[in-house]
Amino acid sequence: MEKFQESETLRMETFSDGVFAIDITLLTFQLKAPSLKDATSSHTLALALLHQWPNYIAYFISFTTIFIIWLNHHRMYNVIRYSDVRFMFYNGVLLLLVSIVPFTTSLLAEYINTPAHQLSSVIYMLLFASICGTLFRMWTYATHNYRLLKRPAAGVRVQTVRTSLIISTVTYTAVAGLSFLLPFLSILIGLIMVVYLSQLKYHREKVV
Amino acid sequence: MEKFQESETLRMETFSDGVFAIDITLLTFQLKAPSLKDATSSHTLALALLHQWPNYIAYFISFTTIFIIWLNHHRMYNVIRYSDVRFMFYNGVLLLLVSIVPFTTSLLAEYINTPAHQLSSVIYMLLFASICGTLFRMWTYATHNYRLLKRPAAGVRVQTVRTSLIISTVTYTAVAGLSFLLPFLSILIGLIMVVYLSQLKYHREKVV
Amino acid sequence: MEKFQESETLRMETFSDGVFAIDITLLTFQLKAPSLKDATSSHTLALALLHQWPNYIAYFISFTTIFIIWLNHHRMYNVIRYSDVRFMFYNGVLLLLVSIVPFTTSLLAEYINTPAHQLSSVIYMLLFASICGTLFRMWTYATHNYRLLKRPAAGVRVQTVRTSLIISTVTYTAVAGLSFLLPFLSILIGLIMVVYLSQLKYHREKVV
Amino acid sequence: MEKFQESETLRMETFSDGVFAIDITLLTFQLKAPSLKDATSSHTLALALLHQWPNYIAYFISFTTIFIIWLNHHRMYNVIRYSDVRFMFYNGVLLLLVSIVPFTTSLLAEYINTPAHQLSSVIYMLLFASICGTLFRMWTYATHNYRLLKRPAAGVRVQTVRTSLIISTVTYTAVAGLSFLLPFLSILIGLIMVVYLSQLKYHREKVV
Repeated sequence: MEKFQESETLRMETFSDGVFAIDITLLTFQLKAPSLKDATSSHTLALALLHQWPNYIAYFISFTTIFIIWLNHHRMYNVIRYSDVRFMFYNGVLLLLVSIVPFTTSLLAEYINTPAHQLSSVIYMLLFASICGTLFRMWTYATHNYRLLKRPAAGVRVQTVRTSLIISTVTYTAVAGLSFLLPFLSILIGLIMVVYLSQLKYHREKVV
Repeated sequence: MEKFQESETLRMETFSDGVFAIDITLLTFQLKAPSLKDATSSHTLALALLHQWPNYIAYFISFTTIFIIWLNHHRMYNVIRYSDVRFMFYNGVLLLLVSIVPFTTSLLAEYINTPAHQLSSVIYMLLFASICGTLFRMWTYATHNYRLLKRPAAGVRVQTVRTSLIISTVTYTAVAGLSFLLPFLSILIGLIMVVYLSQLKYHREKVV
Repeated sequence: MEKFQESETLRMETFSDGVFAIDITLLTFQLKAPSLKDATSSHTLALALLHQWPNYIAYFISFTTIFIIWLNHHRMYNVIRYSDVRFMFYNGVLLLLVSIVPFTTSLLAEYINTPAHQLSSVIYMLLFASICGTLFRMWTYATHNYRLLKRPAAGVRVQTVRTSLIISTVTYTAVAGLSFLLPFLSILIGLIMVVYLSQLKYHREKVV
Repeated sequence: MEKFQESETLRMETFSDGVFAIDITLLTFQLKAPSLKDATSSHTLALALLHQWPNYIAYFISFTTIFIIWLNHHRMYNVIRYSDVRFMFYNGVLLLLVSIVPFTTSLLAEYINTPAHQLSSVIYMLLFASICGTLFRMWTYATHNYRLLKRPAAGVRVQTVRTSLIISTVTYTAVAGLSFLLPFLSILIGLIMVVYLSQLKYHREKVV
């Protein structure tokens, strides 16, 4: 029966991986060839491409953030053996939220250099806050009394990960607030968060 | 030879998972940044975003329903060992129907607050009825004389699942009829069905 | 080393499965909610939806055909153990051709009820002919002196599959020619081919 | 613990495969049915289709190049056992770059027969140069002191692959420069590179 359970986790993991991979690739739609009607030169094309800078920034942050979220999801599943209905539900919420990232990304790209930049970056950052919050919820649930962990769970860094995910959630929320005043600073902090989240380790002995 | 068969089931499962994962992610196209030509403020953007509420509702129901259909598909395959041409055919029909969900979703989103809401929600609900009907057909076929089941099949809840899938099919069909009169009630029942279907257990001992 | 080889085949298979799954799902873009500007009723929506019938037909044929091509690809790989550069090249060609199906499908859907229906269905059918031809080439190459087959290969139906794939290629080509005169008959034959190809068995003992 | 590591590599590999498969299939959006408003004949449709030739060329080169990059990525992972944060980072960069290919492809297709062809093909080729450069960086990192290699690593062709990846990077960069003068020659060389890269062997004994 134990093997049954493990294969359960595996398929949820594979399905989630698929959704992550598709979402990260769908971001590509953010990048579109500018359609210049007039006869153009390389110069006018270059200008048109440069004019799209908000798309590149939005693409870059979203791509790296989804990648890092995937990495954390993947590391979390590495120390988890069992799964139950509730954990599956949380995982479903996570996938739902991650699937909204392409939407908030296009929102950010479209409005970052308009007067509406505040709302678009608030929404953008709040989504990342929710994603981190969901990861935190998953982790708390899975590690409570070592409920869903692989044994021996001695090496699992339960508390460190807990704290880091709280910090991430709080930071993203704060950054969302900051967006009202300093949208570009908030984007910069978003990038720093990617580096921070990329270094979260779930198991003492795992190098990745 | 038995191992052969099992790997057959595995690849069908993986392929189906891929289609499910892509369909659930394609729903994202439902969510589009509103394109405001005039110089905008966060306020006008907020209004434009709120104006898109049918898209969010449609996105949410479709996402959760596909997720729950996937969950059921996955649980069904968990107790199935063999596969034959006919079962593969049914599975193909299921994938065909699931792949239409993004279409009926955009139909619902586009027309839910127009006079054409009736037809769009009827089609939307009838598709879910057909999907449940196909799951029911798959289950009946697979469990008839324990045809395709893993042995020991004693723990498989043949009859309960049968009944639940009939109930689901009938409910979705009834909801489709109800859409003519009360489209929003029908959407609410659609959400309740997600909860109902998420709790269907195919094996006595499986927790997920 | 043998295991090495097998894992090679596995990854090629998985990658191909991914491409198949995505292509079959991308067909969904064929189905679009009609955009009616005027205030509409369920009646006008119904008319607009019925007006899109070429899209439904094209979607249906393409979906079932890709599914059946995948099935054949999958059955072929079931009896193949080794892979080499040349076989990988043929597989690449197959994926390239399958990836064009969404394009020819939209071509067929857009022009089937215009005077340009001839060209669109010729291209549509010729692509399926090329796909069957590629499958035939893969099979001939893999089975020549049992080059890439799993041993014991006694049960592999080398000759039957060969013949069937020739028949399929020839039929699709003939159907392409027929499209000039009777486009709808050619579509009907396309559907019959799906049934024919779904029953191709690559191994004597395999039921699927 | 060693098995842990291996499974790490496996999931990274699978995730990358997913991204590759989706990117290669998203290229399909390059191919669009021409929308002719007037009543059309097969003749006008043929002309409209021929008029789209830059799309077909761009599609073909991008498809084959991504396929060959995937093949190299796959062969590289075949001789790699361990993974660490840094290698994962490089892999993330690779996926980011590969995901941009659909964008540069549409850029090339849209502008290859306009005066802006120079810039579009420079960008197109520079991206391939960066991808090869990243593969080179991954290889150098993985093979330094046999850091991440499977043992026995004796059969791994460390130096040959190194050299070939340098040659590829340099050639693509040179081709990017050449694009200013002879855009079509640069495309031709791009195709030759596909053949060249398809024959890169990472392990002495591997046939694929």
